[in-house]
Amino acid sequence: MSKQQNYSELTDFPVVIQIPVQWGDQDLFEHVNNTIPIRWFESARLVYLERCGLSELMATQRVGPILASMTADFRRQIRYPDSVHVGARITGVGHTSMTMEHAIVSQSQGATAVQGVSVVVVFDYEAQRPVPIPDGVRSSIEKLENRSFP
Amino acid sequence: MSKQQNYSELTDFPVVIQIPVQWGDQDLFEHVNNTIPIRWFESARLVYLERCGLSELMATQRVGPILASMTADFRRQIRYPDSVHVGARITGVGHTSMTMEHAIVSQSQGATAVQGVSVVVVFDYEAQRPVPIPDGVRSSIEKLENRSFP
Amino acid sequence: MSKQQNYSELTDFPVVIQIPVQWGDQDLFEHVNNTIPIRWFESARLVYLERCGLSELMATQRVGPILASMTADFRRQIRYPDSVHVGARITGVGHTSMTMEHAIVSQSQGATAVQGVSVVVVFDYEAQRPVPIPDGVRSSIEKLENRSFP
Amino acid sequence: MSKQQNYSELTDFPVVIQIPVQWGDQDLFEHVNNTIPIRWFESARLVYLERCGLSELMATQRVGPILASMTADFRRQIRYPDSVHVGARITGVGHTSMTMEHAIVSQSQGATAVQGVSVVVVFDYEAQRPVPIPDGVRSSIEKLENRSFP
Repeated sequence: MSKQQNYSELTDFPVVIQIPVQWGDQDLFEHVNNTIPIRWFESARLVYLERCGLSELMATQRVGPILASMTADFRRQIRYPDSVHVGARITGVGHTSMTMEHAIVSQSQGATAVQGVSVVVVFDYEAQRPVPIPDGVRSSIEKLENRSFP
Repeated sequence: MSKQQNYSELTDFPVVIQIPVQWGDQDLFEHVNNTIPIRWFESARLVYLERCGLSELMATQRVGPILASMTADFRRQIRYPDSVHVGARITGVGHTSMTMEHAIVSQSQGATAVQGVSVVVVFDYEAQRPVPIPDGVRSSIEKLENRSFP
Repeated sequence: MSKQQNYSELTDFPVVIQIPVQWGDQDLFEHVNNTIPIRWFESARLVYLERCGLSELMATQRVGPILASMTADFRRQIRYPDSVHVGARITGVGHTSMTMEHAIVSQSQGATAVQGVSVVVVFDYEAQRPVPIPDGVRSSIEKLENRSFP
Repeated sequence: MSKQQNYSELTDFPVVIQIPVQWGDQDLFEHVNNTIPIRWFESARLVYLERCGLSELMATQRVGPILASMTADFRRQIRYPDSVHVGARITGVGHTSMTMEHAIVSQSQGATAVQGVSVVVVFDYEAQRPVPIPDGVRSSIEKLENRSFP
């Protein structure tokens, strides 16, 4: 898993996962269907949220992430066979929400193929409403990103 | 299929399709996973692109749509069982690209659950580059939208 | 939803659901990918299991269905655009498991495209082991199938 | 990719691929949804079919594989996080079809979680009918399996 360090596009992403492209990820246009990078974004996001303590909160208190919005820029087509490196980093932390950036690097092309931004809200699934980001989660994020979010 | 006319949110969408929510569309957070509305956007988009002649061009000349970017705003959680009404309309037409708006109305909630915007480029899949929007496609869009795009 | 009664292949299925084929359900071979009918089987199965009381048991006691095995026979290719009618019926009831048959009729072809059989075990998700089929579930199945399972 | 050699269950499979479990592969029952192993079967199947020359035939002559039937036995639940090793081998070759066995080993459990059998027909997509397995494909399979199929 250290190979992804070669991708300068992913240097600033504390979380990078690697996923092989599956043949069935492609659609009739002979490239990876647009829903697949959204799944890859999610996979990297969940790893990030586990590292900053949100997944544990979900298990114990039913307080967890909910996706408020998302963007995706498709810059290069991805085709099978290939493997992608998917980065996640947090660039903003508000009262109840945080902004996460995603980048997907195609290994065979050696370049960023998809970029995106997610807004994740910390959500009380019992009460069905947003809650303030817990201090422990906030400080974990600051440690992961090596900066503070005022 | 005339029932969707009841949804005032979808009045201005020339294309509206209806899709049942499947149980397996849901994830561990007990609502429809974020990749599913992206698939529904696509389904409505393809119906629109067929109506304005782009699908036929793809079959005959390998000139077809390619998704350049996408946004999605998740306003309400969708749960099984439910049925969604998915609208697509074009709000901007450029030289080689067009802007399409999507709205997903949850039937059980009677309200818009997800909104989004796609930028679709007309693409020559043989030459692998954007091409100008054909006049026939442009005029079909103007007819569908009942307006002109200068 | 009464139109499916026209399909003689589905006459003996107490549960029949209708689902539109989505463009993105297709793969590079220009027909619906083999994972999609498996999702449709599941959707009809869950409707059936709700009708016979298993879904409620899951919500209240964490006793629910688990899939032990599955077969699928792909008899006809399905293509977009189309709509499928998906039937589920139970043909065998054992101590802790039941045998369910599936059939998928393509509306445009007017013929069965996929058939399959699932073995569903009643499972205590807390204890992580099979449990005997509750009497209430068994009698609901017999009522739905209009026969007894000795 | 040599680590999978440790799995004795996969010793006799000439094709073994490794795929990480994604969080979103799970459903409400908190394990990997039954459609996901079917996708993994397919991914290993396509690698196998590429190795025995069928993928190239598809590209040049529109002669390729079509899935006639499939079985799956779900022996253990798979959960995120995990990684699976997916094997494919051919155990029978007929006139126009071949029988392929699949096994999915969960890395975290160190045991086979899903097994299955696919029947793959060699199909002329232009003429829409089965064709005899080309001699070159047959001999490639025999080489991969280190045996003959009379």
